[in-house]
Amino acid sequence: MKQISTGIQGLDELLGGGLPKGKCILVVGSPGSGKTTLLMQFLHKGALSGERGLYITMDEKPEQIKENFLSFGWKLDKLEKEGKIAFLDATPIRVAKSVYRTEDKVLISTDFLRFPELTLEGLIRTIRKIIDEENIQRIAIDPITTFVLRYSQISKRRKALLYFFDSLIESGCTSLITTEMRTGELERSFQIEEFLSQGVILLHTIIHSSNVIRAIQIEKMRGIQHDTQLRPYQITNKGIEVYPKDKVF
Amino acid sequence: MKQISTGIQGLDELLGGGLPKGKCILVVGSPGSGKTTLLMQFLHKGALSGERGLYITMDEKPEQIKENFLSFGWKLDKLEKEGKIAFLDATPIRVAKSVYRTEDKVLISTDFLRFPELTLEGLIRTIRKIIDEENIQRIAIDPITTFVLRYSQISKRRKALLYFFDSLIESGCTSLITTEMRTGELERSFQIEEFLSQGVILLHTIIHSSNVIRAIQIEKMRGIQHDTQLRPYQITNKGIEVYPKDKVF
Amino acid sequence: MKQISTGIQGLDELLGGGLPKGKCILVVGSPGSGKTTLLMQFLHKGALSGERGLYITMDEKPEQIKENFLSFGWKLDKLEKEGKIAFLDATPIRVAKSVYRTEDKVLISTDFLRFPELTLEGLIRTIRKIIDEENIQRIAIDPITTFVLRYSQISKRRKALLYFFDSLIESGCTSLITTEMRTGELERSFQIEEFLSQGVILLHTIIHSSNVIRAIQIEKMRGIQHDTQLRPYQITNKGIEVYPKDKVF
Amino acid sequence: MKQISTGIQGLDELLGGGLPKGKCILVVGSPGSGKTTLLMQFLHKGALSGERGLYITMDEKPEQIKENFLSFGWKLDKLEKEGKIAFLDATPIRVAKSVYRTEDKVLISTDFLRFPELTLEGLIRTIRKIIDEENIQRIAIDPITTFVLRYSQISKRRKALLYFFDSLIESGCTSLITTEMRTGELERSFQIEEFLSQGVILLHTIIHSSNVIRAIQIEKMRGIQHDTQLRPYQITNKGIEVYPKDKVF
Amino acid sequence: MKQISTGIQGLDELLGGGLPKGKCILVVGSPGSGKTTLLMQFLHKGALSGERGLYITMDEKPEQIKENFLSFGWKLDKLEKEGKIAFLDATPIRVAKSVYRTEDKVLISTDFLRFPELTLEGLIRTIRKIIDEENIQRIAIDPITTFVLRYSQISKRRKALLYFFDSLIESGCTSLITTEMRTGELERSFQIEEFLSQGVILLHTIIHSSNVIRAIQIEKMRGIQHDTQLRPYQITNKGIEVYPKDKVF
Amino acid sequence: MKQISTGIQGLDELLGGGLPKGKCILVVGSPGSGKTTLLMQFLHKGALSGERGLYITMDEKPEQIKENFLSFGWKLDKLEKEGKIAFLDATPIRVAKSVYRTEDKVLISTDFLRFPELTLEGLIRTIRKIIDEENIQRIAIDPITTFVLRYSQISKRRKALLYFFDSLIESGCTSLITTEMRTGELERSFQIEEFLSQGVILLHTIIHSSNVIRAIQIEKMRGIQHDTQLRPYQITNKGIEVYPKDKVF
Repeated sequence: MKQISTGIQGLDELLGGGLPKGKCILVVGSPGSGKTTLLMQFLHKGALSGERGLYITMDEKPEQIKENFLSFGWKLDKLEKEGKIAFLDATPIRVAKSVYRTEDKVLISTDFLRFPELTLEGLIRTIRKIIDEENIQRIAIDPITTFVLRYSQISKRRKALLYFFDSLIESGCTSLITTEMRTGELERSFQIEEFLSQGVILLHTIIHSSNVIRAIQIEKMRGIQHDTQLRPYQITNKGIEVYPKDKVF
Repeated sequence: MKQISTGIQGLDELLGGGLPKGKCILVVGSPGSGKTTLLMQFLHKGALSGERGLYITMDEKPEQIKENFLSFGWKLDKLEKEGKIAFLDATPIRVAKSVYRTEDKVLISTDFLRFPELTLEGLIRTIRKIIDEENIQRIAIDPITTFVLRYSQISKRRKALLYFFDSLIESGCTSLITTEMRTGELERSFQIEEFLSQGVILLHTIIHSSNVIRAIQIEKMRGIQHDTQLRPYQITNKGIEVYPKDKVF
Repeated sequence: MKQISTGIQGLDELLGGGLPKGKCILVVGSPGSGKTTLLMQFLHKGALSGERGLYITMDEKPEQIKENFLSFGWKLDKLEKEGKIAFLDATPIRVAKSVYRTEDKVLISTDFLRFPELTLEGLIRTIRKIIDEENIQRIAIDPITTFVLRYSQISKRRKALLYFFDSLIESGCTSLITTEMRTGELERSFQIEEFLSQGVILLHTIIHSSNVIRAIQIEKMRGIQHDTQLRPYQITNKGIEVYPKDKVF
Repeated sequence: MKQISTGIQGLDELLGGGLPKGKCILVVGSPGSGKTTLLMQFLHKGALSGERGLYITMDEKPEQIKENFLSFGWKLDKLEKEGKIAFLDATPIRVAKSVYRTEDKVLISTDFLRFPELTLEGLIRTIRKIIDEENIQRIAIDPITTFVLRYSQISKRRKALLYFFDSLIESGCTSLITTEMRTGELERSFQIEEFLSQGVILLHTIIHSSNVIRAIQIEKMRGIQHDTQLRPYQITNKGIEVYPKDKVF
Repeated sequence: MKQISTGIQGLDELLGGGLPKGKCILVVGSPGSGKTTLLMQFLHKGALSGERGLYITMDEKPEQIKENFLSFGWKLDKLEKEGKIAFLDATPIRVAKSVYRTEDKVLISTDFLRFPELTLEGLIRTIRKIIDEENIQRIAIDPITTFVLRYSQISKRRKALLYFFDSLIESGCTSLITTEMRTGELERSFQIEEFLSQGVILLHTIIHSSNVIRAIQIEKMRGIQHDTQLRPYQITNKGIEVYPKDKVF
Repeated sequence: MKQISTGIQGLDELLGGGLPKGKCILVVGSPGSGKTTLLMQFLHKGALSGERGLYITMDEKPEQIKENFLSFGWKLDKLEKEGKIAFLDATPIRVAKSVYRTEDKVLISTDFLRFPELTLEGLIRTIRKIIDEENIQRIAIDPITTFVLRYSQISKRRKALLYFFDSLIESGCTSLITTEMRTGELERSFQIEEFLSQGVILLHTIIHSSNVIRAIQIEKMRGIQHDTQLRPYQITNKGIEVYPKDKVF
């Protein structure tokens, strides 16, 4: 199986070379664990090595996300202008805001929750169109949570996830998708996305005898041999750094 | 990214200078952990350094909140009169009370739960109006909980929070928003607000071998490098004091 | 902020003088932790120092409550006759019983659950009337639980609590309100009342290596500096005794 | 407050003399913890000292319960014939069975769940009638659980319990009521009955480093001074034996 | 009280002779803990000592169950032919399959969930009929779970269980009934069947510092004195072996 | 009872020879624990020793699953062409996709959740047809979860599982079925499938003092004597390797 670099040297080592090309990989992490940084690093690496990337924001607006990486020296705006990284705003407020602004004076008591949402098919078609037109090879989706929560029935949620992951795989791109880790416990309940994706990278924030410790763990990676242990990592203004030989405590 | 002082020296140190300007930051704490004090200190600091502040009360009435800081020597009434700190009463009982009083004799069996509530759009419009008219630069909202609970469906709750946070960011102000920590356990389940905001400051009250310990932790702060450890803090009548070099135990 | 004695010397020390006058304070405790004793001690102290008290029973009948303090030498009946402590029976069975007795022979299959309940507005009006007529300065409400459970929706429950607490504060009285601690774990989930009140006193019953230990903790007390640690206490027939310098284990 | 012997010497010591006369006391225990034995011992003691007892079975039939005490040498049948202990069958199957037998041949597909149940008022009236006619002074109700579960809404459940407890207190009898402890954990969630009754005796079955240990604890006993610690106990064929000076481990 | 041998010497010792004759005893165990083996051993012992047994399968088909004991040398087929052990297939698929087969060609899209189920009354009548005709003295029911889950309301579930247990007791037979232990934790929540039956034998599978340990515990046994500790046991191809003097760790 | 090799030498040792022929065995594991690898190894072994296998995919498409084993040197494509291993695509997206493609231009806003699903009867008939036509002897179903979640009522879920397992057993094949382990805790709640199947193999991923440890455990295996302890295992590119004599820590 062909493997591609994540842009994080230590993580590539844990993976025995890099992510399996063409697969759908989850990045599961707690708040502030660096999920977005890992994704941007993945796209940045691709952009530098000739693989075009697409960043799909599901919660925050693209401008805000780019702004947070100003201190990283990654020149995202330049890469965007050169067509090396594209941004797709798929936030639920995107639609609401455009309506809200137009009719600000008229719609005083409008319930913003009633504005139309992007459907799953609509999102998939839009992604495919951009992939074709822009020749995308790496996809980052941040996060899948809002999308998953639309389906309150667990069996429908599974079906939608399978359908979405399958569509991404068919595109031939390698995808990193973030999802929210629900608890800070190491012995936690697993989330359904972890079973349905082809790979899972966990970004733990552990409180161990009053020390806060960041630990990365490759829980699952279909088709390749990989390290399975908890490994320390840091978030610096050069991105995520993984220490693939160290133990967390 | 530009950073502004929180008014708490030790906390500014943990943040590597202060809060990221123009962002929406959560303050998550247990009962009595000093959430309100932290917010008032933030506005007080702004008022002294020429940045006007807006305090929005979602539960308690402004008078009661101000009364609690009488012993702090912050002269909130004076700052309010000088237009340096404005107070907005957005409590659910505000409307109910004004009706109740007028019609005290008549409406014997009125169900106070039926009085109209401030809508999300209404609240946003009111905040924007005050920001424009009063030239506000710092916002404190205390707490977001009542507002969040209006939406029982988790997907609508996320959407409302994203919409609200986005509106605050668009205003250009720096916002501190409190939310209630649901448990005293360090290994806790994360709350959805923590994933949706751009920064999270945790105010823990830990019971460690029968000692009650206060610990502050910057869980997340987009765009800046920051300390990630648990640090001791105290609440004195000068406000919150953080010890940025110490360990909690 | 003016402070008034609780009638418990050790607790007054923990509070740095006493309860903040005019506020609404929660007493949260497990079964048998002495919540009712603490409230009665508070009213008894007031009665002796010229502050009239009102005891509002929400579960048990006033006679039964008074009977439990016969061995305490507090002469509650005398104080009641002198108008120094008033009792208000706000139990749900109060209404049911009066109907039941009258029509004992007739209403064989009556469902007692259908009898009318005291409404929130009705309760507030009754309390205000007594406060005005009897010149009450201290209020004890035991417990708030039945009242809170009427509202199954969490957002309505918050609103009702805010409205109720606010009405008590407007009366100018200092109020102690009991609520049931749901678990014996120290690392517990917080209850919404703790966030909405202006002060919280916890009465823990801890099982520590097979010893049962009583510990009092001031979790929150707006506007005053206070001790934050767990402190041992006992229930004797002179009331609650707090040891403000000791550690629990 | 007058106190009466439980029939268990060690327990009387823990209570500083015995149960408070005329009150409603809960016995909370795990399966096999001896709840029924404790109640029968209480009635047996009463019968020997001239206080007539009423045993109300809510789950099992009286004959089965009596059969279990054959090896105890308490001569329950004799005491019943002498009118010293009465048995009331208030099981849900009592009604169903009498109908079922009569119409055995006819009612092939009858749903036994549709048979009429004893109402709360009906039960109270029946109990009062027996108390008056038989001059009862001690009541044992085993267990309250089935009764409590009829009310799925928590606020109605509280109301029904308050009403029931109050009716028992008005009768002037001393009542012991069993309820099921839901968990084997010492740090457990409290059950609402524990807050609403006037006394609570806990019968724990603890697994401590693979040893099964029985421990009795007086959690609550209004109006009297009592021991608060966990104390070992055993179930022998003379009844429950409590070791009031010992520690459990 | 008369006691009968379980067929397991060590268990008989823990019981001080054997099971109480004519009672309804629960066997609660985790998956693979040997519940079915214990029941079969109980019937096998009876068959050898002249007490006829009835095995009622609620999940698996009788043939499959018998097949699992081929290596035990118990000659179940022979005992069945001699009328010493009878098997009753009360599985939910029994009815469905017989219909399904008959109409295989016609009913293509039939929802098998709609086939009629055995009612409680139907099951009881069938059992009684077999008991009378076959002169049964020992009953094994494996497991009660499917039956219990039919009643989603907890109060109806209790009522059905009481009714069922009572019917078995009235038959004069001694019954062993399995139920599923919901968790591998020693400090677990109790299940309602444990409170309603007259005896409970627990088959724990404990993971203690990475060792898997089997432990039997008599939690409850009305009317007889019994051991209360955790005791080790093994499952061999001679059946269950209990070590009544040993500790588990 | 006849036993057949799993293809994993160490696991065969734990089983005392291999899986019981003709039974339905569950493989329960966390994400990335090697469930799919174990199943494929089982079919591969069968294919090499003359037993034809059927792999039924319930989530992922057969091509993706085969792709993940390219590095294993198992030549699945060759075995498939030779008719030694058959693949059945029973994923919920299978139907949806075929419709979607045909009508891509027309059905813009189609809700993919409305496409018809394979019914239980349909699935069973299809499996039986393949078994008959292809002379299948080993079946792998991966995973049962999606199928189980269709039935939200627990009693219907049990019934469907019993019916499905029974149909597989009637076919005479030996079946391995994966299911998702819901938690990483060793002391976990059991899942209903574990009680209903005839054997359960657990694939644990344990975090023990910051080390991630893989442990296999035979929880249940009807009809054969087997090891019951936790044993370490690894996933290499030759498949799963079990160390049947070692302890996990």
